[in-house]
Amino acid sequence: MARRFVCSKTEPIVKTKAGKVRGFIIDSTYTFHGIKYADAKRFQMPTEVEPWEGVKDALSYGYVCPMLTQDVPQGEIMVPHRHWPKDENCQYLNIWTQSISTDAKKPVMVWLHGGGFYAGSSIEQVAYDGENMSKYGDVVVVTLNHRLNILGYMDLSPFGEKYKNSANAGNADIVAALEWVRDNIAEFGGDPDNVTIFGQSGGGMKVWTLMQTPSADGLFHKGIIQSGLIDGFLHSPDNDGTKIVNAMLNELGFEEGDVEKLETVPYDLMAAAYIKLSPKLAREGAYIGCIPIQNDFYVGDPRTVGFTEHAKTIPILIGSVMCEFAFGPGIADKYNLSEDDIKKMIEEKYGEASNELSDLFKKAYPNKNLTDLLMLDSIFRYPTIDFIKKKSIHKEAPTYSYMFAYEFPYDDGKPSWHCSEIPFVFHNTDKVPVCNKPGVSDKLEDQMLGAWVNFARYGNPNLPALPNWPECEADDEATMVFDENCEVRHNYDHELVILHKNASPKFPFGDETILH
Amino acid sequence: MARRFVCSKTEPIVKTKAGKVRGFIIDSTYTFHGIKYADAKRFQMPTEVEPWEGVKDALSYGYVCPMLTQDVPQGEIMVPHRHWPKDENCQYLNIWTQSISTDAKKPVMVWLHGGGFYAGSSIEQVAYDGENMSKYGDVVVVTLNHRLNILGYMDLSPFGEKYKNSANAGNADIVAALEWVRDNIAEFGGDPDNVTIFGQSGGGMKVWTLMQTPSADGLFHKGIIQSGLIDGFLHSPDNDGTKIVNAMLNELGFEEGDVEKLETVPYDLMAAAYIKLSPKLAREGAYIGCIPIQNDFYVGDPRTVGFTEHAKTIPILIGSVMCEFAFGPGIADKYNLSEDDIKKMIEEKYGEASNELSDLFKKAYPNKNLTDLLMLDSIFRYPTIDFIKKKSIHKEAPTYSYMFAYEFPYDDGKPSWHCSEIPFVFHNTDKVPVCNKPGVSDKLEDQMLGAWVNFARYGNPNLPALPNWPECEADDEATMVFDENCEVRHNYDHELVILHKNASPKFPFGDETILH
Repeated sequence: MARRFVCSKTEPIVKTKAGKVRGFIIDSTYTFHGIKYADAKRFQMPTEVEPWEGVKDALSYGYVCPMLTQDVPQGEIMVPHRHWPKDENCQYLNIWTQSISTDAKKPVMVWLHGGGFYAGSSIEQVAYDGENMSKYGDVVVVTLNHRLNILGYMDLSPFGEKYKNSANAGNADIVAALEWVRDNIAEFGGDPDNVTIFGQSGGGMKVWTLMQTPSADGLFHKGIIQSGLIDGFLHSPDNDGTKIVNAMLNELGFEEGDVEKLETVPYDLMAAAYIKLSPKLAREGAYIGCIPIQNDFYVGDPRTVGFTEHAKTIPILIGSVMCEFAFGPGIADKYNLSEDDIKKMIEEKYGEASNELSDLFKKAYPNKNLTDLLMLDSIFRYPTIDFIKKKSIHKEAPTYSYMFAYEFPYDDGKPSWHCSEIPFVFHNTDKVPVCNKPGVSDKLEDQMLGAWVNFARYGNPNLPALPNWPECEADDEATMVFDENCEVRHNYDHELVILHKNASPKFPFGDETILH
Repeated sequence: MARRFVCSKTEPIVKTKAGKVRGFIIDSTYTFHGIKYADAKRFQMPTEVEPWEGVKDALSYGYVCPMLTQDVPQGEIMVPHRHWPKDENCQYLNIWTQSISTDAKKPVMVWLHGGGFYAGSSIEQVAYDGENMSKYGDVVVVTLNHRLNILGYMDLSPFGEKYKNSANAGNADIVAALEWVRDNIAEFGGDPDNVTIFGQSGGGMKVWTLMQTPSADGLFHKGIIQSGLIDGFLHSPDNDGTKIVNAMLNELGFEEGDVEKLETVPYDLMAAAYIKLSPKLAREGAYIGCIPIQNDFYVGDPRTVGFTEHAKTIPILIGSVMCEFAFGPGIADKYNLSEDDIKKMIEEKYGEASNELSDLFKKAYPNKNLTDLLMLDSIFRYPTIDFIKKKSIHKEAPTYSYMFAYEFPYDDGKPSWHCSEIPFVFHNTDKVPVCNKPGVSDKLEDQMLGAWVNFARYGNPNLPALPNWPECEADDEATMVFDENCEVRHNYDHELVILHKNASPKFPFGDETILH
């Protein structure tokens, strides 16, 4: 059915600090694509955009940050993608809102995309579209691009004051976007005093690194971390870019220390040098960038250095999905396998821990097929449990826990994989066919969108359509298990996860497949 | 509402000549993305793909052909895009169908994308998605990628037998795709004896160049040409690649005549050399590729060399849109401008022809705002009239004419622009917000989809929801004007178009904006 579309010379136009922008209205939703929120010279801190006269169109998504490697089209059923033109001049954000009245003061939800700190974009996944979340949740949704990989996270501080925070330039872009939100979002119907940052995978890591970033204090008020913890992922043995940067300069034919050359060399050449050199340096234990590092800007991992006073005041909703790594082929017809067949598969993977693991799995997931144990995640779940414990000690703000355990109608029943909860959170299962299960998926996306939005609005995800969901205590993790039937469980999988972690092969850091 | 989604280890699987492929079912539609239909070495003719054992997934769109220039994100309201990973190994097709029974024998509609012969892809525009056309039209929709620009249309024949048809390699890929359709489409519920090729802009040019391509005879049975004619666009003063190819070799540091080097040089380097050198050669009147040329493979433009005996037997549906070049900013509040204001604007553009042009415009488009004359197209329309005349002489098969004259609810009323009819043809206005006008656009897309599909099914676009639509005679062009109210007009704009063509500035060939 035809929808209402408005985009005239006079409507909808919103005044930002730097100038006016025009978006469009689709049905009830005011939509703005590609608003520039900052400018930046390569490796340097972002600055405010120059003011302009007249009205700028915000009708096309902006450039996304260049990536180190060429995209490959695959896995589109599980995670449908949007590829987009790339340029390092990529500080753009997008807004979906139900009002452009400054009186509206609706909750603001700022999405931080995944892809580690080196890939992805605000529109990388089809599921990131903000229209449904804004419409069904009556919130202002903001999504944004920022600098990534060697453009956003490469320490050049030993080479000069202007590069002081180049190691965290990508996160600094996000802070600039949050400042833009503070200064402008009221004009888009949003409440600058009620901003929730939320993100998945690398986006979840951005949430907790920003909690520990003093310049972001007060720019956001709640955080949602989806599959955003991996032990060791943000750890670098040293934090000094001298080695990798000089190696790149050398590879590119420049003199050691002549970093200004890096400011103008084409990105592709710099990326090629980085890709060639970084694996060896990483093996030697050197810093190779592409992650934030501790400095004046970023205080460090809250699980090791402790939560900042500000971070303690941030209500957190945090969780992961049951089988983060279930990207490979599913197990054909798993519901018709014999118990013996399944036992054999499990023994092949887990050896002597198999029996105990199987028993613990059945206790944690009594309604699941035992074959899902073959894909079970502990790499995200283990540090998530740890984070919850450590955050829950601080009673300044609540911590809510979830697990996404939905089974998808794909490959004869595929357990939830990394990124698979995102279409439900954004109420976008209409755009991601694999989510669809008549009579089931509509209800689940209503519940999840509802919980996320209520958390953003009130700091509490409870809603009538879900069982009562208490906040966590340090010794009592109350976890909402999202599935065909949602229920709250207490410390329900801790034994399973600890044993699983110990019985599993060590996680290969840097494996592309998990860093979305 | 949740939809039916099926993609198991056993369903839906279809046997092709080379091996089995697995797609997915969404609601009623069997969907296959990214089936490889051919392989090819650079500059050489396509060959059949190697057979495989087991089942290949056809769940992600395949690579699209590399382009000469970097994409820029703009104009997304008017023509929403899908960008995609690029590789010259790009011979992929996609299928949407309502049945995978070999008895179904449904009409097959093969979409040839636009972008001249140098850009675009099967999924370049959001509106190219085939699900709705298949579902609402009960047809098998095929879309495909093929080689473009210097990879698909660069004459190296002077340098060796294996490059004999490199000048038309892109069209040869399409022929290979049509052979694949002939050999395999019955397994996807299609009728290999009822294949319609249709395309817009460059895609329309592909339709009529394939009509004049003997190796494609019998592989398709009807053709639809949407905005697919521009005078001179496919004309090159000479047809010999010696100059441009040697210039590129020289630029790349290779010896003259050493074309084998071009087979392995990275595409980006070759493209950069081409972009640097081709404008000067073009000004000198030399062939610079990126269009098909006359040779054993391609007989030449039917309007100059005459229609082949086979082409005469092909029923044709052909047309263009009212204001192909209406890409710039619209005229604000045009319905409240005074007659004098409008007169002044028209005089500024058309000088002494203004009064007569205005009168002819009012006769041709009595319900339109006179400001639309400022954007009126004759560059496509004039040769389209000529094509219709010349094709209609041949009574072996009918020729039907249309004009798309819908006004979009954008910029205070924007007349139809190049590409703007595509969402209506594909019944995809749900995916292209700017099309939406409650009470109007739904009806129009039903009518247009219905006409296109009936033409494919019966060779006749008539349907009860439209006024009677006769075929053209050489001296009587019966044109279906698609608009809020559709009507058939006879030679309704010929005087207007001739005068407009003469009063307009000469069309600048090669202007990026029109070559979609």
